[in-house]
Amino acid sequence: MSILVVGSVALDSVETPFGRADRIVGGSATYFAAAASLYTKVNLVAVVGTDFPMEQLNFLTERGVDTRGLQVADGETFYWSGRYDYETNTCESLDTRLNVFADFHPVLPEGYEESDFVFLANIDPVLQDEVLMQVPQARLTMLDTRDLWINTKREALTEAIRAVDVVTMNEEEARAFVRTYGTLTATKALLNMGPRIAIIKQGEYGCAMIGEDGYFSVPACPQEDIKDPTGAGDTFVGGFLGYLDRIGEVTPQTVRRAIVTGCALASYTVEEFGIDRLRSLTLDDINKRYQELFRCTQFE
Amino acid sequence: MSILVVGSVALDSVETPFGRADRIVGGSATYFAAAASLYTKVNLVAVVGTDFPMEQLNFLTERGVDTRGLQVADGETFYWSGRYDYETNTCESLDTRLNVFADFHPVLPEGYEESDFVFLANIDPVLQDEVLMQVPQARLTMLDTRDLWINTKREALTEAIRAVDVVTMNEEEARAFVRTYGTLTATKALLNMGPRIAIIKQGEYGCAMIGEDGYFSVPACPQEDIKDPTGAGDTFVGGFLGYLDRIGEVTPQTVRRAIVTGCALASYTVEEFGIDRLRSLTLDDINKRYQELFRCTQFE
Repeated sequence: MSILVVGSVALDSVETPFGRADRIVGGSATYFAAAASLYTKVNLVAVVGTDFPMEQLNFLTERGVDTRGLQVADGETFYWSGRYDYETNTCESLDTRLNVFADFHPVLPEGYEESDFVFLANIDPVLQDEVLMQVPQARLTMLDTRDLWINTKREALTEAIRAVDVVTMNEEEARAFVRTYGTLTATKALLNMGPRIAIIKQGEYGCAMIGEDGYFSVPACPQEDIKDPTGAGDTFVGGFLGYLDRIGEVTPQTVRRAIVTGCALASYTVEEFGIDRLRSLTLDDINKRYQELFRCTQFE
Repeated sequence: MSILVVGSVALDSVETPFGRADRIVGGSATYFAAAASLYTKVNLVAVVGTDFPMEQLNFLTERGVDTRGLQVADGETFYWSGRYDYETNTCESLDTRLNVFADFHPVLPEGYEESDFVFLANIDPVLQDEVLMQVPQARLTMLDTRDLWINTKREALTEAIRAVDVVTMNEEEARAFVRTYGTLTATKALLNMGPRIAIIKQGEYGCAMIGEDGYFSVPACPQEDIKDPTGAGDTFVGGFLGYLDRIGEVTPQTVRRAIVTGCALASYTVEEFGIDRLRSLTLDDINKRYQELFRCTQFE
């Protein structure tokens, strides 16, 4: 069992009402790998510049993440800076410098093509399509995207969504992509394009899904101390796919459990800036939040 | 078993992206009574002007609502007009004319003081306190409020919250009242003031509660056709208290069921403008949505 992830490894500067952090390690593939590697083997494909502090990813290789696919290119690492207001569901991007990410073409080292699951984080959908062609035997493929690609690469993104098993987006992005104001309408439209499962990330309201057993909704873990929401979505997917890959069975029941597992994991990410909380996280920690979500959602 | 409700019976003009309605029957006590009367006897206290189309409330008296407490005063009925954007969680108030409501003092007809439950809808907290003094034997008291009273009658509102068993507010109002940006923090602060249960209404995201068995969260029913969100909150409370009064037992289990019942009811209100959908609603309809909420929230 293993998961291929193709995404960004980045340097982020983040400002929230509760503090700030400069040039810390971030990126969709980083958060995903930090979460999924608690459950299964992760094969990572991304690119960094020569300025990247590689030792910061040691905890991933210690957890068995294969980083042969992490290219080091001449130039600077993908850089993003953003500011969150008290409404942590909205974020203002202050600066995005693609740097070495601008010329990135995913290359799969030998063996990666045998990954059971594939996660295409929010990179250019043209690249997402390129990767999909290289993993025809994958048991489950999933993609995420973001406003940038919805606005600039609509056609390629549509192709990519048609080709995957699971599609996920933030709620406002799903509404924008489908051009509707109803979240349920947006979710159904995504499913009609081909995927078996559509997952809508709702930030502090948790997440909604339509899968083979219909609609499912789970709240975020109730929390008082949210320091930095960055990476919560990619952590969620890491927990979701990591759990499913470890269990090995994709059924309506395991999919629901995987979604709750993803929410439990994401609730830890937001407690600290960057990936710090994920470094020390254990399966016991995750199980504690899973049980908390169970207690606060069940009724007769 | 019976519930006393003190609130507004009003005329509303509402504009949403899906249509508009002019001078239709609305008001917090109306929506509450329309919902709660499906479960139990409702004793209504409110005031209307001589312009009010009383025959529109016939369906309430047919369901056993006692309207002896509905005063008719010289002048015009409380009038509100508002516009909802596609983001149905936010509403712009265009016009509010208190009219006869400005001089309203709740008077309880004989027998009303024996109501088991009391719901103080979002009227002036000074009046809420006045009513509470007249029903010292009530088994369960509950209040709702709104931005107007939070901004203008903070002290009286604080007194009223201290005196009730259950407090409910919209999420943004709870945050504003407690002066925090965290919903969980706001909910805990409300509980610390005295009530046993605090319920936060989250509009299209359902509702969150802290009760005697801790935190509970339930989503709104997944819906594609939301025509008019007006009255959803008061319908919710009507279903919540109506169900509890009928069951007769207030335990952690029945409180959770009552919350889900309230959400199921509110999901019908928003399907049509005004109270129209509530006129024909049956317990079977409500049970259908209850089961739907059960299916879309349960996991192992």
